Amino acid sequence: MASPIASPTPIESQSQSVGIVQTQFATLFDASRVLTLEGGHRLDHVTVAFETYGELSPAKDNAIFVCHALTGDAHVAGLHSADSRKPGWWDGLVGPQKALDTTKYFVICANVLGGCQGTTGPSCRNPVTGKPYGLQFPFITVGDIVEVHAALIHHLGIVRLLGLVGGSLGGMQVLEWVARYPEMTQCAICLASAAKLSAQGIAFNAVGRRAITADPDFKDGDYYGHDPSRYGDVGPLFGLSLARMIAHITYLSEASIERKFGRDLQHGDHLEYNLEKETEFKIESYLHYQGQRFVERFDANSYLYLTRAMDYFDLAGRYGSIQQALGKTNARFLITSYQTDWLFPSIQSGEIVKALVETRRHVTYLELESVFGHDSFLIEIKQLEELVTPLLAETYRRTRVTWTTQCLRPM
Amino acid sequence: MASPIASPTPIESQSQSVGIVQTQFATLFDASRVLTLEGGHRLDHVTVAFETYGELSPAKDNAIFVCHALTGDAHVAGLHSADSRKPGWWDGLVGPQKALDTTKYFVICANVLGGCQGTTGPSCRNPVTGKPYGLQFPFITVGDIVEVHAALIHHLGIVRLLGLVGGSLGGMQVLEWVARYPEMTQCAICLASAAKLSAQGIAFNAVGRRAITADPDFKDGDYYGHDPSRYGDVGPLFGLSLARMIAHITYLSEASIERKFGRDLQHGDHLEYNLEKETEFKIESYLHYQGQRFVERFDANSYLYLTRAMDYFDLAGRYGSIQQALGKTNARFLITSYQTDWLFPSIQSGEIVKALVETRRHVTYLELESVFGHDSFLIEIKQLEELVTPLLAETYRRTRVTWTTQCLRPM
Repeated sequence: MASPIASPTPIESQSQSVGIVQTQFATLFDASRVLTLEGGHRLDHVTVAFETYGELSPAKDNAIFVCHALTGDAHVAGLHSADSRKPGWWDGLVGPQKALDTTKYFVICANVLGGCQGTTGPSCRNPVTGKPYGLQFPFITVGDIVEVHAALIHHLGIVRLLGLVGGSLGGMQVLEWVARYPEMTQCAICLASAAKLSAQGIAFNAVGRRAITADPDFKDGDYYGHDPSRYGDVGPLFGLSLARMIAHITYLSEASIERKFGRDLQHGDHLEYNLEKETEFKIESYLHYQGQRFVERFDANSYLYLTRAMDYFDLAGRYGSIQQALGKTNARFLITSYQTDWLFPSIQSGEIVKALVETRRHVTYLELESVFGHDSFLIEIKQLEELVTPLLAETYRRTRVTWTTQCLRPM
Repeated sequence: MASPIASPTPIESQSQSVGIVQTQFATLFDASRVLTLEGGHRLDHVTVAFETYGELSPAKDNAIFVCHALTGDAHVAGLHSADSRKPGWWDGLVGPQKALDTTKYFVICANVLGGCQGTTGPSCRNPVTGKPYGLQFPFITVGDIVEVHAALIHHLGIVRLLGLVGGSLGGMQVLEWVARYPEMTQCAICLASAAKLSAQGIAFNAVGRRAITADPDFKDGDYYGHDPSRYGDVGPLFGLSLARMIAHITYLSEASIERKFGRDLQHGDHLEYNLEKETEFKIESYLHYQGQRFVERFDANSYLYLTRAMDYFDLAGRYGSIQQALGKTNARFLITSYQTDWLFPSIQSGEIVKALVETRRHVTYLELESVFGHDSFLIEIKQLEELVTPLLAETYRRTRVTWTTQCLRPM
């Protein structure tokens, strides 16, 4: 196993990239240290897949933890090999001289508990049966996800984070982190997110789950083949692909679909087509393509567990009120929402901001212009950079001043 | 076959109802009068299922045609039997002393071409093969639907309608009627509709169709059993149910889901549930119920054909511009949209209104308050009544004045 704090190898030709990176693994819970979940179940083996970029400072005061969204993974930036053409999912934001500047900060991202990209989840071997968990995997919450990531931060020898950053389900994790560990971060950046998912969001997730569980190949979640980590070969591929298509529409705005596809037909005369061929409109073939690609990299059971965790997330329900959840931290908040995001509308970010203002926390809120709907936080990098860069720089400056002052103070 | 203009039997106990009504049938196209579709295909047998309420005046100047939406049928008002508990789908709007007052007006509604409630569609017998059409049924457009209904109006001996009324796909039909036959109606009421479906709407329809066509029981559309008119026994029931669930979410607003279901759980402690049981949230079980009920009354192939017709509807594409499509009529328009309708947002009604104003047509437009999203036009009856009643009364008064004047004028 690679050292958890190994720095990535820079590539000369990609000066703006963190270069070649490796996913690392840490076993954080085992028989001697069992993880007790919010629902009461226990997991006595939890491995976490994570990546790091940049160097942890000697004072360990420059660590930023990135919380990924529903179908993300630990691979935020750089490339996994020299011939890879697919950089990490937030490569525009993380790297030398980027918003999360890896020449200054030590950036960490880890796959979530219940996921399928290296961290323990339903496709992993159940030590009791020797077979993949499937639906035997216990119910998990956003709180459980954060608990495992907090253990990783501890494992890396970090006491306090400079910042937490996340969008969508990642933003929910940021809020949960702050509620659970009010002193663990200096700033909290929560993008396109909410203190709870809307009822409409729950409805879309529910239909997606039904598409999966009613697929004849779902087999009550026990569909894994010889190699459970090879997704796309077996399982409810049609149901999962359909779930992704439904969700994908909710990530886009009408304006972005209109701009990208309009009502354009794939073929010529629209009255001379074959009904069985379901790709007349370009948006149809695009969604179909997205569904097909998704099943190759994602496990259907993980999709069930993680959408559930998202549906059940309710900061006020868990902590009494949003005020009570967020009022104990001194972290500086940056909250953004996007005008065309109808899955996590601005009104929901507004609820978080209201609670922060009422409890006199330090918060900057912006409703940003973008045509890209919910996906904006992944796409509008420049916009985000302008907000994130000064916030991190200022927070880091203050952190160091405080620490220096503390050192000079007589014991 | 009942007389096409038979009036329904009133029930004493339901003074506000049109009473017991019967669906009637008319064969409007046959070998001697073939229907040529917009796509060029020909249908040499078209039967239309329709219902009428009220009495046609001797001058035949009081007829109002109701265009139903995607999954509607000819049964707008009244009951099909004395022990029925399910009145027609717009019973609140159609009846004695209601907005479409059956003591004054003669109201007609007919099932659409390609439908599955009595009018010729994919579940009907293909005269060539002797078996149900299935996917051999030709592609149909909103124009074809209107053409068949225009033939029905002619069959009933009506030269000019007092009004056309419809919401959603029904509203698209109203617009197509006016474009195709500018002199055939005195007023046109178009609710929660658009001159073309949004790209997002197309995307949701496409995913719904994929759910149907990829269901193993779809069998390339050739799934009918012994009695093709018995839906719910055979065919892609799961796919159709899922398509309905997806669509149903788009008919609701966040506010209406929140108000009706919130994030309420069905059961007690939310962390002690069985993942296989997909009905934790009330909205989930509601959607599931809607999906189950739908497959009992609707044919999957009809769903494919009618959503296609909706997707391809494009008034400007067909007639050059909305202005050219609607600028030739002297009909008085009432256009309404609903604040919380995100499937047919107000901006789309605005495009219709803009074209009518630019061509100096007579139009009243209102964006109405309602929490019920796209479904508002089916639910907010009182609101609609206040707009529709005076418009019809005034139009009818003017019609009669004009006709009288014409009679008095020397030949």
